[in-house]
Amino acid sequence: MKLVRHGATGDEKPGLIDGGGGLRDLSGVLRDIAGPGLSPESLDRLRLIDPETLPLLPESTRLGPCVGGTRNFVAIGLNFADHAAETGSPIPSEPIVFNKAPSCIVGASDTVIIPKGSAKTDWEVELAVVIGSRASYVHANEALNYVAGVCICNDVSEREWQMERGPTWTKGKGCPTFGPLGPWLVTLDEVPDLGNLAMSLDVSGQRMQTGSTATMIFDVPQLVAYVSHFMMLEPGDVITTGTPPGVGLGMKPPRYLKAGDEMVVRIDRLGEQRQPVIAFDDWTAKVSAGEPTN
Amino acid sequence: MKLVRHGATGDEKPGLIDGGGGLRDLSGVLRDIAGPGLSPESLDRLRLIDPETLPLLPESTRLGPCVGGTRNFVAIGLNFADHAAETGSPIPSEPIVFNKAPSCIVGASDTVIIPKGSAKTDWEVELAVVIGSRASYVHANEALNYVAGVCICNDVSEREWQMERGPTWTKGKGCPTFGPLGPWLVTLDEVPDLGNLAMSLDVSGQRMQTGSTATMIFDVPQLVAYVSHFMMLEPGDVITTGTPPGVGLGMKPPRYLKAGDEMVVRIDRLGEQRQPVIAFDDWTAKVSAGEPTN
Repeated sequence: MKLVRHGATGDEKPGLIDGGGGLRDLSGVLRDIAGPGLSPESLDRLRLIDPETLPLLPESTRLGPCVGGTRNFVAIGLNFADHAAETGSPIPSEPIVFNKAPSCIVGASDTVIIPKGSAKTDWEVELAVVIGSRASYVHANEALNYVAGVCICNDVSEREWQMERGPTWTKGKGCPTFGPLGPWLVTLDEVPDLGNLAMSLDVSGQRMQTGSTATMIFDVPQLVAYVSHFMMLEPGDVITTGTPPGVGLGMKPPRYLKAGDEMVVRIDRLGEQRQPVIAFDDWTAKVSAGEPTN
Repeated sequence: MKLVRHGATGDEKPGLIDGGGGLRDLSGVLRDIAGPGLSPESLDRLRLIDPETLPLLPESTRLGPCVGGTRNFVAIGLNFADHAAETGSPIPSEPIVFNKAPSCIVGASDTVIIPKGSAKTDWEVELAVVIGSRASYVHANEALNYVAGVCICNDVSEREWQMERGPTWTKGKGCPTFGPLGPWLVTLDEVPDLGNLAMSLDVSGQRMQTGSTATMIFDVPQLVAYVSHFMMLEPGDVITTGTPPGVGLGMKPPRYLKAGDEMVVRIDRLGEQRQPVIAFDDWTAKVSAGEPTN
């Protein structure tokens, strides 16, 4: 299944994408794509529904983040050998774990805001894992049982705040709009091989990142198991699993996002994100003028 | 007001402590001490209630974490000059920001579990701030308007996982039960001077930490403002503000928690926490045997 959350920011309803690509409303069936709605039992119940019987929604409907109520937004650093090299970092001997603020989560094609005072806002296409059941001290060979599905994440990052204002990475990872998730939460039956998905990210028409989950250092089951040994994972928690080469920080000279850019983020089977980039001051002017925003 | 959440883990109801120290039930008035219930308007409504009119609950009632639904559990590192010195770290020129997993939050006097494989589980008495209203890019001189209240936090930490398995501190800060919050969420009118509160922590009857918020490097308004420039803070989010000297890591030789220890954690005006310490294997044995746990 391709599960979605549709409607206005903060008021998203559950939905799914039918076999023909149509957007169907699930709000008569399920409260939200969140918490208990992500359990294996809940997903099994949804599979029994004939999508044709669900209300069809207009194509123009906004899609919000594909999972609601995320409390723990965990991220893995330097999980692709080539990306570690481009940032000048050694290949990690075990996963690097950091956090993104859950308040940074937005829809897949919402506007991304360059924060006030930022000169180094960067992009990162990533495969994100959405937890379906509480997971603590799980083994890699059973870890996928705790996963509801996967989606695209753009792990937007402010490099100065991440790397020059440490020692942790927290300051550069959780600014508002730094976590587009979606468009779809794709259940694992639709993604038979998590370890072989092409990934790409374009900025304003130029291909910046080209990669594949095949070159991840630690794979999805290993990461879920690993993180679950340090913290209890809850339904709706997200682990985004690292980015392939091609970020702005790694270019010579580095290149960062500027107002007016558009990012297009793709992973095989998981759809496409398309984010316009706006400067903080232009964003606040739009908000003040009552113009539509995310 | 002293707000509390009472009842079984995961099913806590709102309450308050009356002038005589009695526990009163607020569940007929408010859904939870969480989210919109923390707004200035909601707190003002609660102030109009005569506590004597609320149902009185038995003294033995368990108190859960004093705030529910926390999504972002932010913590500040090395915010006391003497504590920075005892860990061998320089005094930070700006706040160090890291995250604790929200799933580590427990009640003030719940059991703290030494995680599987841990040899360096340590204690930290801290003043925690609970956000009452959405805060983004706020100034220090208005920051307290966004705060619902304060409480005690024991920022329990696994030092090997925090410091030797970095570069971030995430792995050692969010293990299950590593975030006792409470007993009370105390509104700011009851804490006239956040910058002059005595703090202490005892382990098994021995005083380990003695300090005061007077020696914080960055004060509460500065911290709320600072963090709000890197991430949007939401109602129910928590910022725990750093610990004074006396942690196990700083002792010569270092001393860490062992099964059977009891921690007693106190801050002026905010009450007292009292946590028994148990080993992971003993905990799982209790769970398997169906014995009462947190």
